[in-house]
Amino acid sequence: MNQNKLVENVTSRDEDFAQWYTDLCLKAELMDYSDVKGFIIYRPYGYAIWEGIQKYLDQKFKETGHENVYMPLVIPESLFQKEKDHVEGFAPETAMITTTGVEELSERLIIRPTSETLFCTHYQKIINSYRDLPKKYNQWCSVVRWEKTTRPFLRGKEFLWQEGHTVHQTEEEARKETLDMLDIYTDLGKELLAIPFVTGRKTEKEKFAGAVETYSIEALMHDGQALQSGTTHYFGQEFSKAFDIKFQDERNKFQFAYQTSWGVSTRLIGAVIMVHGDNEGLVLPPYIAPTQIIIIPIQGKKESVKQATETLYTSLKDLGYRVKIDDSNKSPGWKFSEYEMKGVPIRIEIGPRDLERNEVVVVTRHNREKTAYQVEDVASNMKDILKDMHEKMYQNALDHVNKNTYEASTYDEFKELIKKGGYVAMSISGEEAELQIKADTTATARVIPFEQKLITKICPVTGEKAIQTVWFARAY
Amino acid sequence: MNQNKLVENVTSRDEDFAQWYTDLCLKAELMDYSDVKGFIIYRPYGYAIWEGIQKYLDQKFKETGHENVYMPLVIPESLFQKEKDHVEGFAPETAMITTTGVEELSERLIIRPTSETLFCTHYQKIINSYRDLPKKYNQWCSVVRWEKTTRPFLRGKEFLWQEGHTVHQTEEEARKETLDMLDIYTDLGKELLAIPFVTGRKTEKEKFAGAVETYSIEALMHDGQALQSGTTHYFGQEFSKAFDIKFQDERNKFQFAYQTSWGVSTRLIGAVIMVHGDNEGLVLPPYIAPTQIIIIPIQGKKESVKQATETLYTSLKDLGYRVKIDDSNKSPGWKFSEYEMKGVPIRIEIGPRDLERNEVVVVTRHNREKTAYQVEDVASNMKDILKDMHEKMYQNALDHVNKNTYEASTYDEFKELIKKGGYVAMSISGEEAELQIKADTTATARVIPFEQKLITKICPVTGEKAIQTVWFARAY
Repeated sequence: MNQNKLVENVTSRDEDFAQWYTDLCLKAELMDYSDVKGFIIYRPYGYAIWEGIQKYLDQKFKETGHENVYMPLVIPESLFQKEKDHVEGFAPETAMITTTGVEELSERLIIRPTSETLFCTHYQKIINSYRDLPKKYNQWCSVVRWEKTTRPFLRGKEFLWQEGHTVHQTEEEARKETLDMLDIYTDLGKELLAIPFVTGRKTEKEKFAGAVETYSIEALMHDGQALQSGTTHYFGQEFSKAFDIKFQDERNKFQFAYQTSWGVSTRLIGAVIMVHGDNEGLVLPPYIAPTQIIIIPIQGKKESVKQATETLYTSLKDLGYRVKIDDSNKSPGWKFSEYEMKGVPIRIEIGPRDLERNEVVVVTRHNREKTAYQVEDVASNMKDILKDMHEKMYQNALDHVNKNTYEASTYDEFKELIKKGGYVAMSISGEEAELQIKADTTATARVIPFEQKLITKICPVTGEKAIQTVWFARAY
Repeated sequence: MNQNKLVENVTSRDEDFAQWYTDLCLKAELMDYSDVKGFIIYRPYGYAIWEGIQKYLDQKFKETGHENVYMPLVIPESLFQKEKDHVEGFAPETAMITTTGVEELSERLIIRPTSETLFCTHYQKIINSYRDLPKKYNQWCSVVRWEKTTRPFLRGKEFLWQEGHTVHQTEEEARKETLDMLDIYTDLGKELLAIPFVTGRKTEKEKFAGAVETYSIEALMHDGQALQSGTTHYFGQEFSKAFDIKFQDERNKFQFAYQTSWGVSTRLIGAVIMVHGDNEGLVLPPYIAPTQIIIIPIQGKKESVKQATETLYTSLKDLGYRVKIDDSNKSPGWKFSEYEMKGVPIRIEIGPRDLERNEVVVVTRHNREKTAYQVEDVASNMKDILKDMHEKMYQNALDHVNKNTYEASTYDEFKELIKKGGYVAMSISGEEAELQIKADTTATARVIPFEQKLITKICPVTGEKAIQTVWFARAY
């Protein structure tokens, strides 16, 4: 087999970003297509990334007083229709069970596209007093949305996610929860995925069906397109009024509760690929990588190589690193290409000549730099090597955001800048401008940043008074 | 509120076991019903038990070389029909998506009742050579089976489970996997759930649709009925031939692969309730209990009580125990009943009078025994207290099995014994006897034990030659 076969099959990132992405998803064995369009198979290497995200978030959720539950897969059609905006937003994408192997159902059952209606029905039953509040539940599950165009991880008919649903006594507490969870998502980017998320509020047009306010974490892909990577919603009393979720307060007065929901999905796997990947393949941030270190013995049958390989493997394993040895009979060059393509952060080459100098070679995937280490120094330095790699990858991604974020004072300027990719900030008058921009450029409002400063007093699109600065981008 | 209200609402176990069970599921807040019959809500306390099972098994699976994946929720009807026995077994219980909010589907999609067909299709694509084997995948998900009569955790239209699916080069290896996984399930009972599972092979009549052989772990409930609590299946080449899963062996010859599957579900929660529960409520084995220790301060506003409570809480927490304080203004008696009903293994009462003697009272749920401990001895003794409790609970359950396992030499004897509840072993001639027994007594064949010894040479039911000894029981 040709030494570079694997890599040759992956399209160049700079020639065709979309094809490069799909190639990588398949060749790196993150996923495969199933027999039903839009439903993908999460293969071990891809699912392990999701498990890493789950482990990080589940711990954070529990530390902040959230409990896991599991709600039914199905929602009766009549229940789904209780909150007007919500049903309007989701109805076209719903998949429905209408029959079993032997009989038709009396009511159509919607496969959950999201579970607000189920949580609300349950909350209505179990919440009576202020003593029952807050309720802070989370669920790990899959949801189904009948999307027309689908892409691995980014948009599918089924995806895996977590959905948090909370109930509070006061608006203040619910608003705080909405922002606290946004912080946890931001930390996920900073600490695990090496992705600097841009955060802010969504415009009225872009917010979640049924929410008073939606907040978002947005990631900027290498090609300059943005990816909404997670959202948190403040519902106010919209759902509690539709579902009659009331509690008796300390003065025995009935009040409608305040609610939130928030979620991230396997879409994050897509973000990791498109933020960090390069022409050689995946580049996985070290703390999320399913395999952090691959050890490749050169002339592995030599006793000295064999022994050094085993010793180093054991010491790294004992320190808790996710480490593997590849002593198969493929050529070293083939293996180098394979693990580069799979984005394994650290490759350690152990060969007889280096060993004579008591050295091994450590190659870091993100910059493909080779460093010789004394054998006994590798394990003790690994913590710092991975930390440095994580920080550099985060900084690179942040540099990419900073280099590709612009301000526009005129609409012509905006149109020029948006073509280059990246975020363009502009101060606009409202939804009319937003719609015009989308029609003219396909760019959409990503977020209204928390820190607000008007660039111009007049909206360059409508000529009316500008009321807020919004970050626009073309998006997945 | 009446001090014993919670307990009074739970039916006596000995008066009406079925009602006692359902009462406990609801009152202990393990689950709730949803708007769709047969679909339950797993509440935090119930879901946490499942999380404990997941954590234990997931680690065992990974230690033994299994990898997690996620397959689609849906199976095209045509794909489902590929393996004849399999489709016959499951077709009547299948729920089907036939339409979306806007259009009818061209092919009906079955919500997975089990995922053999999906795994097989994928394996067919990715397995080419003996070098690709074994493949040992597992999936955590929910499945849907349109059962007519449903009971919380025991039988539902949707339940949570894991399903392992493996592919091997040889019959020997696949058979070993089938039995190795049965061992892991047996250990789960022994080490985590304090349930002594009876294991063995299923009869032809009771085996899984499409399997060559099915093995089972069976638990004996307090009322003498058995509960099939998990199964492992050896498929031979049945599925590999139906799905064309071939590999090239070392001599470049194509061979059909050998397969297994195995699963346990949230039904195990039902087993824990019905094996260990008593008239006061749940009794949770200490290693699976979501809350292991509840500390109840008596006259909690006294500074000495407050301080002792905090100190003890912190030291137990630091040792890694799942511990909570209840300092709410409910009466101590009410709290005692509540946590007994919820089956919390250890209750620690901290009151001013005991504290004067530097003591606190530790109450163990399984035997409701009170022991006074010196304050500083509680944390250091906790490991032994829990270990002793776990072993006693396991032994109690094992005694129950031993006391309720009989041998029958005549059919009249069998009929008498089966009425008493428990297992009755009888040596039978085959399926004809099995069908007759079911028709006469409703008892079913639970397992053919691994250690075989004929009780009689002639089958007491058919008068023909007895070929094997089978354990029968009435079962959930």
